[in-house]
Amino acid sequence: MGNVKEARSPLILHNAFLVTMDPAARVFRDGALVVVGDRIQALGPSAQILRDFSHLAAAESIVDLGSRFLLPGFVNTHVHSSQQLARGIADDVDLKTWLHERIWPYESRMTEEDSYLSTLLCGIELIHSGVTCFAEAGGQHVSGMARAVKELGLRACLTQSTMDTGDGLPENWSASSTDDCIQSQKELYKKHHNTADGRIRVWFGLRQIMNATDQLLLKTRDVAEELKTGIHMHVAEIPYENQLVMNTRKINHGTVTYLEKIGLLRSNLLAAHSVWINEEEIEFFSKAGVKVSHCPAAAMRMLGFAPVKEMLEAGICVSLGTDGAPSNNRMSIVDEMYLASLINKGREAYMNGQTNPTALPAVAILEMVTINGAKSVLWDNEIGSLEVGKKADMIVVNPFSWTMVPLHDRISSLVYCMRTENIDSVMCNGQWIMKDHKILNVNEEEVTSLAMQASDDLLRRAGIYLPKRMNYL
Amino acid sequence: MGNVKEARSPLILHNAFLVTMDPAARVFRDGALVVVGDRIQALGPSAQILRDFSHLAAAESIVDLGSRFLLPGFVNTHVHSSQQLARGIADDVDLKTWLHERIWPYESRMTEEDSYLSTLLCGIELIHSGVTCFAEAGGQHVSGMARAVKELGLRACLTQSTMDTGDGLPENWSASSTDDCIQSQKELYKKHHNTADGRIRVWFGLRQIMNATDQLLLKTRDVAEELKTGIHMHVAEIPYENQLVMNTRKINHGTVTYLEKIGLLRSNLLAAHSVWINEEEIEFFSKAGVKVSHCPAAAMRMLGFAPVKEMLEAGICVSLGTDGAPSNNRMSIVDEMYLASLINKGREAYMNGQTNPTALPAVAILEMVTINGAKSVLWDNEIGSLEVGKKADMIVVNPFSWTMVPLHDRISSLVYCMRTENIDSVMCNGQWIMKDHKILNVNEEEVTSLAMQASDDLLRRAGIYLPKRMNYL
Repeated sequence: MGNVKEARSPLILHNAFLVTMDPAARVFRDGALVVVGDRIQALGPSAQILRDFSHLAAAESIVDLGSRFLLPGFVNTHVHSSQQLARGIADDVDLKTWLHERIWPYESRMTEEDSYLSTLLCGIELIHSGVTCFAEAGGQHVSGMARAVKELGLRACLTQSTMDTGDGLPENWSASSTDDCIQSQKELYKKHHNTADGRIRVWFGLRQIMNATDQLLLKTRDVAEELKTGIHMHVAEIPYENQLVMNTRKINHGTVTYLEKIGLLRSNLLAAHSVWINEEEIEFFSKAGVKVSHCPAAAMRMLGFAPVKEMLEAGICVSLGTDGAPSNNRMSIVDEMYLASLINKGREAYMNGQTNPTALPAVAILEMVTINGAKSVLWDNEIGSLEVGKKADMIVVNPFSWTMVPLHDRISSLVYCMRTENIDSVMCNGQWIMKDHKILNVNEEEVTSLAMQASDDLLRRAGIYLPKRMNYL
Repeated sequence: MGNVKEARSPLILHNAFLVTMDPAARVFRDGALVVVGDRIQALGPSAQILRDFSHLAAAESIVDLGSRFLLPGFVNTHVHSSQQLARGIADDVDLKTWLHERIWPYESRMTEEDSYLSTLLCGIELIHSGVTCFAEAGGQHVSGMARAVKELGLRACLTQSTMDTGDGLPENWSASSTDDCIQSQKELYKKHHNTADGRIRVWFGLRQIMNATDQLLLKTRDVAEELKTGIHMHVAEIPYENQLVMNTRKINHGTVTYLEKIGLLRSNLLAAHSVWINEEEIEFFSKAGVKVSHCPAAAMRMLGFAPVKEMLEAGICVSLGTDGAPSNNRMSIVDEMYLASLINKGREAYMNGQTNPTALPAVAILEMVTINGAKSVLWDNEIGSLEVGKKADMIVVNPFSWTMVPLHDRISSLVYCMRTENIDSVMCNGQWIMKDHKILNVNEEEVTSLAMQASDDLLRRAGIYLPKRMNYL
């Protein structure tokens, strides 16, 4: 990685269809943007920017984007980066098999090196799909993740998978005590928070309510508040979870109602999925400023239809996540945009007897992956839109191919047509991390090869064998 | 296009992960396949094939696929190839606006040259997504389509959009008489059926029941039977359609029940969508051998959740389609596989209170895009699987990239991970039509450019103007 402090001479990107996602929803048809160091120095019409800045920049730092689109980098707010090596180990199986026979054995055998490779491989996919910042959903070996994120040049909120109770955990995962859980996260915070030129932040994790004692919930709430950081938690994923919470914690509706009761619903809580929540609970989220990560693919496959429209109408900040590779299995936020639109239009068929093609329109979805994503990771003062003074996190999209033409509606084409292959280049923190489809900071082929080997070894150690689906000869 | 008769010396593709999709579900881990002319001459383990055939082939005709996957070409059973130029003209609008203010004005102003360019552009997208055969859903100017299909090297069942009645049709579309409808299709059949080395077949079209008199339904049934060809019709798309059929045609449930009554349900009927059909109607389809094209994206956006699981359980041949660009907007059968899985697993949440991750497993979906697709277009004696004697329609998939690794479950990776960019090469009728991502028979950039120009002109003629979604500067 270059040192950002060395690169003080401005970079000018001009002749772009510049979608700012700023509060005024400005789009410059022929726009330009100036990067100095890790920040956006200026933006506006190309003619004006070139007039004011081109004398300050070296010739090779004045880049004509040829009418390509320039957008804020996408924020993926729910990513199990440790699960990338597990892609394909739990397809077409029920939830119990998925968790007890595949995911837990896999995660519980991971080494720090596995987590490092898994996050590298995952990061490559995230970058190709235009992601500049992600929120780790809670995984193994945060130090391994941090090393990968630092090398890739990405921005991330890293979180440890944290549990102090639960049935059926693998034997080699001796349940940690509540204090262990808090202590280890405090240490990770101390070690990694605000490292990698400020690109890495450390959050607190709660895997889910069925794996957390009340003590852990409350201490997590207080320590995160004290350290001014976020909490990432899976919330209200399946009907069984709510049922169990009602039975054991004596309330009239699931997890959200209980978290409200104990004061955990705060503006620093990022609640993943939140599929099975009722009207009153939506109101709780809204009042408390809780953020929701909607993961369309994983929801369809494993959980159900989240009330996204209702949450947005209640003023809740909803963003998008890919979840992990064994529950998706594409880890592309670009595909999640497409899915979010389709699924939430389709969901209306059950609510009102027919789909609603006007539900969750393109702009709402673009907001989810940009400014709402930034708000969800408590970083919207610096990322999520292209504005003067914000960090230079952005992507270049080439829409002039068979995937997107004829481009009658450029904004909707970003949601309904764009595919990962349209994303040409990605910049994070003022540095290109992918240029013309090439990942710059790690060797893609080498990572792929090492990751395949490591994942085979890991499955063997974990004793995971998959049935054959066809007649292999 | 090369003349297939010239190419009699065998082509040997070896060292492939060869997924045959044959009745025995055979997969050769290290497989090889021999193409002679337009057909598959042999297939089996690489060692055996090389031993038996390599002395017959020129050195440059013995191709090592480097463990890439070799599969049958995909069949896309519902494609509005005339609508490719309309991508983006009707996003986030209600169904009435979609049809009356966007699609009909667009289609009714198309010239034959527009249809030709639209089908060329659509065909490029189809080929990139691994499609070797498609069923046109019924569009404008079959002669324009046929010219494009011939040039691209694809296989297709072409169909004219056919209506002899209906409310709200554009003024310049004077309703055709029933006889006109039949006569023009007979002429198209005579002119184009079995042309382009046998790659083009002509089917009969019925746009939908609300645009067809009983006379047209019955004549179409009889003429298609007489000519031994298929009928492609949109069936039971929205609740309103069923309601109208009940009111006007005096039956107790929608379109399918009426088609049963008049004897139109036969094994040569390809019923697109079929979302709103009940148990009894599923039974009608099953008994008659009707084929169903399930279009997940379009269904989600505009129609609703088709009872796919129930139809498959009833023994109905269900295949996959992309529908048209203004209702999808990705025209990728690869994405439809991914969607079909997710949506049909998710649909169970409404049926049974929770999603069913085991519903519609990977193999069922692969069957839908291969052998079921071939059966749906009445062509399974020659395509839909890799078998000796069948036509050489096949695709080469490169799975060794960040999109698909680590490949623990190779078969499921084709459905849950593969993206269009993994499809390297496509062969149809023994000829490569895409090689290493390059479309061979038409100039992709030139088509894109001409298509963009033609579509702008067409929208202007049709008086279609789209509102701006953001604050353009």
